[in-house]
Amino acid sequence: MPPTMIRPQNDVSLRRLIDERKPGHSLPASFYTSDEVFNLDLDAIFGKHWIFVASVAEIREPGDYVTIEFGKTSVIVIRDDDEQVQVLHNVCRHRGARILLPGAGSVGNLVCGYHQWTYSPDGELIYASAAEEGFDKSCYSLRKVAFRVISGLIFINMSDEPNTDIDPVAEIVEPYFDAHQLGRAKVAKQIDLIEEGNWKLTLENNRECYHCDLHPELGCTYFITWGYPEDQIPPHLQDVHQRYLAAEAELEEKCIERGIHYKGNEQLDTRTFGFRVQREALDGEGESYSLTGAKLVNKLLGDFDDAKLGRLSMHTQPNFWCHFMADHAITFAVLPIAPGRTLVRTTWLVHEDAVEGVDYNVDDLTHVWRETNNQDAHFVELAQKGVTDPAYVPGPYMPSEYQVNAFCNWYLDRLNDYIEEDPS
Amino acid sequence: MPPTMIRPQNDVSLRRLIDERKPGHSLPASFYTSDEVFNLDLDAIFGKHWIFVASVAEIREPGDYVTIEFGKTSVIVIRDDDEQVQVLHNVCRHRGARILLPGAGSVGNLVCGYHQWTYSPDGELIYASAAEEGFDKSCYSLRKVAFRVISGLIFINMSDEPNTDIDPVAEIVEPYFDAHQLGRAKVAKQIDLIEEGNWKLTLENNRECYHCDLHPELGCTYFITWGYPEDQIPPHLQDVHQRYLAAEAELEEKCIERGIHYKGNEQLDTRTFGFRVQREALDGEGESYSLTGAKLVNKLLGDFDDAKLGRLSMHTQPNFWCHFMADHAITFAVLPIAPGRTLVRTTWLVHEDAVEGVDYNVDDLTHVWRETNNQDAHFVELAQKGVTDPAYVPGPYMPSEYQVNAFCNWYLDRLNDYIEEDPS
Amino acid sequence: MPPTMIRPQNDVSLRRLIDERKPGHSLPASFYTSDEVFNLDLDAIFGKHWIFVASVAEIREPGDYVTIEFGKTSVIVIRDDDEQVQVLHNVCRHRGARILLPGAGSVGNLVCGYHQWTYSPDGELIYASAAEEGFDKSCYSLRKVAFRVISGLIFINMSDEPNTDIDPVAEIVEPYFDAHQLGRAKVAKQIDLIEEGNWKLTLENNRECYHCDLHPELGCTYFITWGYPEDQIPPHLQDVHQRYLAAEAELEEKCIERGIHYKGNEQLDTRTFGFRVQREALDGEGESYSLTGAKLVNKLLGDFDDAKLGRLSMHTQPNFWCHFMADHAITFAVLPIAPGRTLVRTTWLVHEDAVEGVDYNVDDLTHVWRETNNQDAHFVELAQKGVTDPAYVPGPYMPSEYQVNAFCNWYLDRLNDYIEEDPS
Repeated sequence: MPPTMIRPQNDVSLRRLIDERKPGHSLPASFYTSDEVFNLDLDAIFGKHWIFVASVAEIREPGDYVTIEFGKTSVIVIRDDDEQVQVLHNVCRHRGARILLPGAGSVGNLVCGYHQWTYSPDGELIYASAAEEGFDKSCYSLRKVAFRVISGLIFINMSDEPNTDIDPVAEIVEPYFDAHQLGRAKVAKQIDLIEEGNWKLTLENNRECYHCDLHPELGCTYFITWGYPEDQIPPHLQDVHQRYLAAEAELEEKCIERGIHYKGNEQLDTRTFGFRVQREALDGEGESYSLTGAKLVNKLLGDFDDAKLGRLSMHTQPNFWCHFMADHAITFAVLPIAPGRTLVRTTWLVHEDAVEGVDYNVDDLTHVWRETNNQDAHFVELAQKGVTDPAYVPGPYMPSEYQVNAFCNWYLDRLNDYIEEDPS
Repeated sequence: MPPTMIRPQNDVSLRRLIDERKPGHSLPASFYTSDEVFNLDLDAIFGKHWIFVASVAEIREPGDYVTIEFGKTSVIVIRDDDEQVQVLHNVCRHRGARILLPGAGSVGNLVCGYHQWTYSPDGELIYASAAEEGFDKSCYSLRKVAFRVISGLIFINMSDEPNTDIDPVAEIVEPYFDAHQLGRAKVAKQIDLIEEGNWKLTLENNRECYHCDLHPELGCTYFITWGYPEDQIPPHLQDVHQRYLAAEAELEEKCIERGIHYKGNEQLDTRTFGFRVQREALDGEGESYSLTGAKLVNKLLGDFDDAKLGRLSMHTQPNFWCHFMADHAITFAVLPIAPGRTLVRTTWLVHEDAVEGVDYNVDDLTHVWRETNNQDAHFVELAQKGVTDPAYVPGPYMPSEYQVNAFCNWYLDRLNDYIEEDPS
Repeated sequence: MPPTMIRPQNDVSLRRLIDERKPGHSLPASFYTSDEVFNLDLDAIFGKHWIFVASVAEIREPGDYVTIEFGKTSVIVIRDDDEQVQVLHNVCRHRGARILLPGAGSVGNLVCGYHQWTYSPDGELIYASAAEEGFDKSCYSLRKVAFRVISGLIFINMSDEPNTDIDPVAEIVEPYFDAHQLGRAKVAKQIDLIEEGNWKLTLENNRECYHCDLHPELGCTYFITWGYPEDQIPPHLQDVHQRYLAAEAELEEKCIERGIHYKGNEQLDTRTFGFRVQREALDGEGESYSLTGAKLVNKLLGDFDDAKLGRLSMHTQPNFWCHFMADHAITFAVLPIAPGRTLVRTTWLVHEDAVEGVDYNVDDLTHVWRETNNQDAHFVELAQKGVTDPAYVPGPYMPSEYQVNAFCNWYLDRLNDYIEEDPS
């Protein structure tokens, strides 16, 4: 008691668990399987760090909203009447009813479905019937959540005192993304996929291509040598590597010529807001995630006039990655549901003037990543089953999995921060 | 260890949790969501206080039974061969098998389906094959549960030493109910509805009409100003209130003339067996819960010759309410299943001589409360989702929700009793 | 913390729980219902003692495998390229992915589906792509599990230092079983049945015939007086008992004449590897588990030329029983899934040369035990529901249930061993 307390009572044990981790190896089983660590993750990671939730393209007009669920939390991301983004807790201040059911839509005001308390889209309580004299509505606004928009990507921070490391990172990455102009994009498709594994296994799966032989559709355009040290490329991927080198040289030349940001910047585990950004070439036609590499949307994003810009990719710790091509962008949000269950929300974004059925076809647009996500969900499920087995012992990450290792390092460093900040 | 212990080890923490509650506000989240409090509720509330389980109309003949499930408990309510009510634990004394599956029916004896130990309907073990010499059957009767019948309503108490506050309350309320003669009634329909919320949210939902604008069918006859202080009636309900005042005056006159008990008696949080009883007028024709207020059963209950007697309603803490009209009665039992899951059993009772299809139609009879219950189940689910969110903070009850507050007060007082009675 | 720890922290409490057990009575509720005891069972019973998992008839050729799941463990039982049995943990040594999904089949090598690490059927890592220089594959073999084959029955032991009491027991029982020649048998049918009860209730159900009046199909051939003391046979089973005595006399004569082992040897709770073995007569034709007692397979097992050999039955603690007739054999493995959920795997084995549709028919072959298992699953579910009820009190085992009592004694003795061996 109290039963809702989620901080482990005995930080010495948490420290011991952290210390059990062997460098360069996968994490001890408890990190993937235990309720205690899951609650800790919600508190120390998702409760303290910058989480990607949506892009501005999902809430284009006043009243447009999308809800985001992770753990037992639900937040409302909404555009208010002044066209500003607002992020609000999805809990009525009267008797705590959920205001909006999970999903996206458009509202005039936020009306609780239980007793009809009514809030404006910026969270202000504007109506509560039959209140006592002296009832001060201003004390009952919806609780707000801190957020920061980077080139149209909305990150939230559940802490009352959010760390500010997002600011310098925003300065670094915005020059890469601004030309894609998410503010002029719209959602072509959004798919929520539930993976039967811990959210960290979902992240780890994303951070290496050592398994990419098993992604045939992705491999048509994505150079699956990604992450391999130069001297570690397996023999059967040598021809892929040669095409990669040629494509990269071509892309680099174009970027320099046109002043497009492309150079890799990787600070995955060396700062609080760990990230990696780089524009990289695609195989085949080099334009987009189709089976040939040809573009999938006729109307390009922003003001682009050249479809062959490869993929601008960013990873941020702990829950985000994305790919921005000239013709469309894809964002991925990882949202923990339970120790062994995770939501991956994938959103395909196209230019606001692109016409479905004319400029693009949703099935074609989403084909490669639908297949790839489903394959990854299977891998994550295999991993979750195995690490849950008492016979599991953490194994060594291979050289091409160094970014998985970096994610684990970042994660454990944040737990250490958490203990040190509040050793009570 | 022992793992079945359900009393919190540290009553200081329970005390702290109780003390956290802000007067006039909804309860802290743990009360609605935690396993520990749920187990405590089963022990300190459902294990110590008077629980409504059924009416005598459900077990009219010897051998008729109904089982009642809450938490991990199942009890058998049965009429024995002497036509007496018996309440028995539904657990065989041999190796503990469940004797009757959940439901209602009629039996000669109670025969365990595993090794055929056989008990009479009053719980006596009358047959166990191939027992050792000296085996004393009289030591293996089914364990009995205390009960008390009030005007045909059966209340049980799981404690070995039940509190006796039910006796003076029975004296108060029987004069209201006796004329409806439940002993001559039969079940027209019973519906079990599972609500995805804590049992206290189900109770709280029942104890106010602040949300009744969202009950259109109920609002045809039920004056949805119920619970509002006179000076707090919202403008849009002023016409309802005027009709209410007129109908109440008419009902009062009739009751006085005929010597019918009608005056409200409300002792919701001022005694161990908290209750509220009152006969109140209905809108429209004023007879029953139809869409027009006209009666739904031609054959009236008991010896009534006047269908327009409004609704005689009673609430008892912690799990019961009912409405008795001239033409039929409805009882509601709230039975906790899990911290976030509750059974609401609704039973429609009519005169034993009323003929289905002739005197009444089940669909019409049950329409208003089927719809109302389904709407309430939705509200309870919204509330459960929201109070589970870490962002939930208890909010203020409005003046018209004073009976919700009374329920919470009664509940917390019982927890205090529990700690004080056995501080070990 | 650490959250995966399954040994109860306070052995004093476990001791108290053990001491609470009243001799000759069913176990206290926690033993059947609590998560803590379930985890203890996996550790102290299934983690330390000899568990039946399969017979050699299930893996006849190199590469044939079957997986076995209990608790969160999965093991692979496989025949390697040298035709030897191997038992391996089903967890990749790289990042812990599950290698084989639950089921049976045949493989060349064991290839992890995530990053394609490849192991030979004896568990050696033979391929891991793009490893660092100096990576020593020999350090990453699949972890092995100890096993022992008794007349074709494969028992495993998860401990690093398995107890050796299986050796003398093997010497005792092999002379009974060898003539049935499981090495020349094949699987006719395997059925996995999930019972909604604790694994100990499944075992207890198997260890008595006090409930066998409710097994009409089984009762056609199985003498349901089994387990009753001579002077306790119920009146309605006296005729069954007379047939039993006659059939036993006939079988004994034949066994002596032919030198067939048949005498009962029962050491259920007097040694670490508790067992019971005996050849006993069947009713009717006396040959097999059909409705008439006539054989169900034309081609007899091994080199038998006489179909009327009754049933050779063995029980071993904690998870096995079997029946070997002249025409077929049936093995039963009990595998715990959760405190209230258990897998019973039943396997029907026939001579390798018996032809389905010619020598036997699967529906007929399996009829009696399919029905019997389903009936038992119902009894186990009733028992689980009842012992979970707070009103459950342990009840007395009847004289004919003495083997249930022996199982409980064996079980509690093993828990005592566990505490004493490692009192930390």
